[in-house]
Amino acid sequence: MRYELYYWPGIQGRGEYVRLALEDCGAGYADVARGERGMAAMMKMMEAAKGTPPFAPPFLKAGQLVIGQTANILLYLGSRHGLAPKAEKGRLSVHQLQLTVTDFVSEVHDTHHPLGPSLYYEEQRAPAKKRSEEFWRERVPKYLGYFERLLQNNGGSYLTGRRLTYIDLSLFQIVEGLRYAFPRRMKAFEREIPGLIALHDRVADRSNIRGYLASDRRIAFNEDGIFRHYKALDM
Amino acid sequence: MRYELYYWPGIQGRGEYVRLALEDCGAGYADVARGERGMAAMMKMMEAAKGTPPFAPPFLKAGQLVIGQTANILLYLGSRHGLAPKAEKGRLSVHQLQLTVTDFVSEVHDTHHPLGPSLYYEEQRAPAKKRSEEFWRERVPKYLGYFERLLQNNGGSYLTGRRLTYIDLSLFQIVEGLRYAFPRRMKAFEREIPGLIALHDRVADRSNIRGYLASDRRIAFNEDGIFRHYKALDM
Repeated sequence: MRYELYYWPGIQGRGEYVRLALEDCGAGYADVARGERGMAAMMKMMEAAKGTPPFAPPFLKAGQLVIGQTANILLYLGSRHGLAPKAEKGRLSVHQLQLTVTDFVSEVHDTHHPLGPSLYYEEQRAPAKKRSEEFWRERVPKYLGYFERLLQNNGGSYLTGRRLTYIDLSLFQIVEGLRYAFPRRMKAFEREIPGLIALHDRVADRSNIRGYLASDRRIAFNEDGIFRHYKALDM
Repeated sequence: MRYELYYWPGIQGRGEYVRLALEDCGAGYADVARGERGMAAMMKMMEAAKGTPPFAPPFLKAGQLVIGQTANILLYLGSRHGLAPKAEKGRLSVHQLQLTVTDFVSEVHDTHHPLGPSLYYEEQRAPAKKRSEEFWRERVPKYLGYFERLLQNNGGSYLTGRRLTYIDLSLFQIVEGLRYAFPRRMKAFEREIPGLIALHDRVADRSNIRGYLASDRRIAFNEDGIFRHYKALDM
């Protein structure tokens, strides 16, 4: 089956966790909104008057199914493509971790948008600076410390279980994003999370991921996405 | 099976969505952290050196399983207790909607904590005021308008499908919480969401829910939870 991924065409954003999973397992997919008339098609699906249209991108069309919410899409893809255990216990564990990544991603977004997503960054520079400081003082050590601990407790190769799952791919993206958005702060912090950095490097070296990262399917980070580099927030 | 729910003992918070599901289906459960030595037991489970301990409460112990993240717990409970369809399509739809509630709840929290969860409200009154205004101008109409539309498209009885699911219980809680935290603003807004208000009333009138709400198992709203009433944010 050829999947259709619907996501904002100019950013990695929340769609990137889905792209990484699709790319790693070699699934065929169209990144619909990046193609001709793709944005119109995406909007039309969100306005559907029947069923359960998604609140926001990303969403995935898989045959007759339309699945919204990043973590929900990964739940669906994971057990079908060897990126999550088939057994309930492992499936729920991986999903639990992905939902924790979801929470972290929301806090990343709030570093540049503490007054809400509907105002511009330029309208909230001072609170963004404060929130970024709290984020690095309290939240990054708490979240990444947690993931590092689980990784070490599990032997260092994967966050959970004995094979790579989509949560490992997602944590690769977290490291990538923090390096882009906060290069100075992240450089100082990386010594606290040696296991996650090594995991990042192993994921980057997987052949499908390596091919993807070198392709133009991988959109460059930019200041419209979740991970944004504003120098004032990285000091 | 008697479940064990682990959540902060003094608040409804994110645990409440799980409590409502457990109560509605009449499942037996202990609200562990509200009992003697319960907090110590909760902390110990989070510090487990094996497996995939949860990042934060709430989590549910179901036999040998320990399941973290509110929406993940509901995913688990839903199909077991008739609060979600068993078929994949319906199960994913309900979960997608619950993850959208999760996003909304996170934005509710940000109204009083725009600079982050690690500072006190008193340290962020002015940005909280701004964020609350944006929240009511942009976000509440967008989220609740979406849920209202789905409810109407589905005939008005349930958000999705032909039976009550945990997402209907969760939207009851959203209406309850907004009424508590923002009584003035919510009063003016309710005319925009007649379907959700009627759904709220029907849920409140379900016999198990009615019994629960009248019991001391239902913790009163207060200013340590997600929905907090600060008069300055409701003007």
